[in-house]
Amino acid sequence: MSKGITSRKEDYSQWYNELVNKADLAEHSAVRGCMVIKPYGYAIWEKMQAALDQMFKDTGHSNAYFPLFIPKSFFSKEASHVEGFATECAVVTHYRLKNDGAGKIVVDEDAKLEEELIVRPTSETIIWNTYKGWIQSYRDLPILVNQWANVVRWEMRTRLFLRTAEFLWQEGHTAHATEEEAIKETEQMLDVYATFAEKWMALPVVRGRKTENERFAGALDTYCIEALMQDGKALQAGTSHFLGQNFAKAFDVKFTSKEGKLDYVWATSWGVSTRLMGALIMAHSDDAGLVLPPKLAPIQVVIVPIYKTEEESKQIGELVDKLTSELKQKGISVKYDDRDTQRPGFKFAEWELKGVPVRIALGARDLQNGTVELARRDTQTKETVSSEGLADRIENLLADIQQSIFEKALAYKNERIIEVNSYEEFKEVLAGEGGFISAHWDGTVETEKRVKEETKATIRCIPLNNKLEDGTCIFTGKPSKQRVLFAKAY
Amino acid sequence: MSKGITSRKEDYSQWYNELVNKADLAEHSAVRGCMVIKPYGYAIWEKMQAALDQMFKDTGHSNAYFPLFIPKSFFSKEASHVEGFATECAVVTHYRLKNDGAGKIVVDEDAKLEEELIVRPTSETIIWNTYKGWIQSYRDLPILVNQWANVVRWEMRTRLFLRTAEFLWQEGHTAHATEEEAIKETEQMLDVYATFAEKWMALPVVRGRKTENERFAGALDTYCIEALMQDGKALQAGTSHFLGQNFAKAFDVKFTSKEGKLDYVWATSWGVSTRLMGALIMAHSDDAGLVLPPKLAPIQVVIVPIYKTEEESKQIGELVDKLTSELKQKGISVKYDDRDTQRPGFKFAEWELKGVPVRIALGARDLQNGTVELARRDTQTKETVSSEGLADRIENLLADIQQSIFEKALAYKNERIIEVNSYEEFKEVLAGEGGFISAHWDGTVETEKRVKEETKATIRCIPLNNKLEDGTCIFTGKPSKQRVLFAKAY
Repeated sequence: MSKGITSRKEDYSQWYNELVNKADLAEHSAVRGCMVIKPYGYAIWEKMQAALDQMFKDTGHSNAYFPLFIPKSFFSKEASHVEGFATECAVVTHYRLKNDGAGKIVVDEDAKLEEELIVRPTSETIIWNTYKGWIQSYRDLPILVNQWANVVRWEMRTRLFLRTAEFLWQEGHTAHATEEEAIKETEQMLDVYATFAEKWMALPVVRGRKTENERFAGALDTYCIEALMQDGKALQAGTSHFLGQNFAKAFDVKFTSKEGKLDYVWATSWGVSTRLMGALIMAHSDDAGLVLPPKLAPIQVVIVPIYKTEEESKQIGELVDKLTSELKQKGISVKYDDRDTQRPGFKFAEWELKGVPVRIALGARDLQNGTVELARRDTQTKETVSSEGLADRIENLLADIQQSIFEKALAYKNERIIEVNSYEEFKEVLAGEGGFISAHWDGTVETEKRVKEETKATIRCIPLNNKLEDGTCIFTGKPSKQRVLFAKAY
Repeated sequence: MSKGITSRKEDYSQWYNELVNKADLAEHSAVRGCMVIKPYGYAIWEKMQAALDQMFKDTGHSNAYFPLFIPKSFFSKEASHVEGFATECAVVTHYRLKNDGAGKIVVDEDAKLEEELIVRPTSETIIWNTYKGWIQSYRDLPILVNQWANVVRWEMRTRLFLRTAEFLWQEGHTAHATEEEAIKETEQMLDVYATFAEKWMALPVVRGRKTENERFAGALDTYCIEALMQDGKALQAGTSHFLGQNFAKAFDVKFTSKEGKLDYVWATSWGVSTRLMGALIMAHSDDAGLVLPPKLAPIQVVIVPIYKTEEESKQIGELVDKLTSELKQKGISVKYDDRDTQRPGFKFAEWELKGVPVRIALGARDLQNGTVELARRDTQTKETVSSEGLADRIENLLADIQQSIFEKALAYKNERIIEVNSYEEFKEVLAGEGGFISAHWDGTVETEKRVKEETKATIRCIPLNNKLEDGTCIFTGKPSKQRVLFAKAY
């Protein structure tokens, strides 16, 4: 285990890259911008998926699957959607390769598609084209569907998990008979995301709405959850869009209401992606490696034996068997690291790097004393405890760690929501530790764009249940009714 | 519920198409060859995935994720792989669209890729290129990785689930230090597939090996499970490949053995796909609709109330609540179909079409008598039983149905393995009810190809543990050591 990753203070960005790599989470592939998610990283993503999927089902949604490809012409159908998505994406133009006779594989020019296909950057268009066939009357509504899929957006500057050309995500697409119901769904799913972030990822978030400028292409309203990373930059962790009747109009999806009236269907879409992996890593980890909330840790407890003789090894093994079966009964995942090719110190460092929440070390003296050494990853503290009632103690400890990690992140976030009343103060905070800057804004796209040009900070959101307060825009001095949250963002 | 699907006898192929459609399993999309898997169909696929995934994990595998795209040049690296896969596939040539100024979206010719990317038809090449970085020594082996993903093969004639341009699958890719271990893995995974097919899908299979001609492109040996559909055609339900050192050589993946010797790594790959959905549908269903094995049925029990008054409806509802909670405690999924927009007869037909294994009907007279009407989908029989101890009875009934469906399919398969000793007999069987034809074959690719040209039948497999028996090839009369199984196949 070669330790020594760059510290956060030294270079936060480099620290992140090294951590993702050394903790075996992901790596760059031979295809520009596309990542390989390694087994340990994927195991975390699977835990995220399972929790989210259950929450979607508990709120009445079903999964389905729609095509990877979208006919090019579909992108022209929803005007604002075109601008946002029909630009940087992978285009399939041919459907065959051939051997050129000299042993080289080339594209068969005879196999050109009549209409080019776009690898989906998001699926509103192909899905609403499908919904047209599913919806005739109010009896067919609502449609509450989610899809787990890969999508491609041709990003020029990529970072593992945070911004990749191909990424994994889920996209919910719902259809409703009324505007009210669609808005309720949009809000409900934002709430699902916020609950998941806080309860599972131990990641406190601000719930809010995007300004017009930051809205999803084709949405009337975009709700979001925003989290704060340890470098004071924000990260958008999930979005839920109220799409109005835009896509129904673009794809001519009408329904007959109970009253016999013909109307366009109301829509929502909502998604989170493997970006959440980036948020999880950056929010909690430290200079020794990953810190994982127990609920998402693929391995929750690791046991490292320390022995000199075969006899000691055997005795430790027996104790470990008993403990392991007790822990498994409680649904706690355990790994017994009995490799004889590595020394305990190496193992400690490896599991620390990989963020296993609880480590148990067990040696000959412990056997005699009826104790074990119990170390928690988040605080890097350890204590010697009785091996009696250990499974119960660990169960409580895991719950405690989950809570502690959340509270630490919450305290940091709350501390870093900074109210400023002038553009000078605004720039000072950005030049310093960063965070969410709560400031008055005149409500115009123009001001938002100019602030972004000058400082790289964007309006992350208008918090839900924001309190109204008269003030003046920090940039133009024009009147403002409420503060919004600015930040530099990933 | 518009019933009346074409009968199997009338037109098996049409029956299948209508069934897939009317039971809400899947439909064709706007993109040629790509399907939409609808929520009810996807729910079955999810159950398959969950069971298989657990079996993979129980045999030591982890999931990971590799890129959707593969650089074109990778396909030239493994000679025989090229022939099999670098032909009919989707080619990405550009990475940007643009607005042509006249409001039309066109491909931006300035954004042409230097090297074209292929949408993966299978991932051996990109994965072995990645494994090169993961493997140095025997300590890094074995690598036991699986991926759940979408793949694309540009099929000209497509049928929902059975043959589509894009399909969903899992592909396992393992790396080993020895040939023996890799072969053992290949065999183990075939066994996992066979167990899954028989225990979960209630689908009896023949375990066998492919002839050279039918082998996976790049494999030294391809093991397969073959199932028989009700029209006497075979369906390959899963394959497990021993790849030897072919891909390690193509991508230069070597390791240092325990003894300090440098050698190429040994490989396997294995996969099953949404094709299994086609097999499941075709193997068990009847002219009234889908017949699902209880273990894969999204809804295992449906309850239909029959009432005239509000009071009756209320009393039935109370009984249903109690029963539902008892069934749920047993892990049995239940749907209470209390829609007031449809009549009981309509509901019966709908759930029959959708293959729900057990239906309970509950009316006013049942309330008085303390009974319910219990109908099983597979035999289309019903009986009136006491509502006392109903949950236990249903649990047993579901197990019984699972077993019955399997035994029925098993009897059919065994009956349709026909030994023939002449080419005339061979053709007679094919012209009649079909099935697996057990016949002697001279072992040459030439003969196999000619039989296929003349009869469309292919060698499905050489069964594992085949008994050796001297005979003469039905086509050439040349000597043969064993019988192989021929069939027309999907």
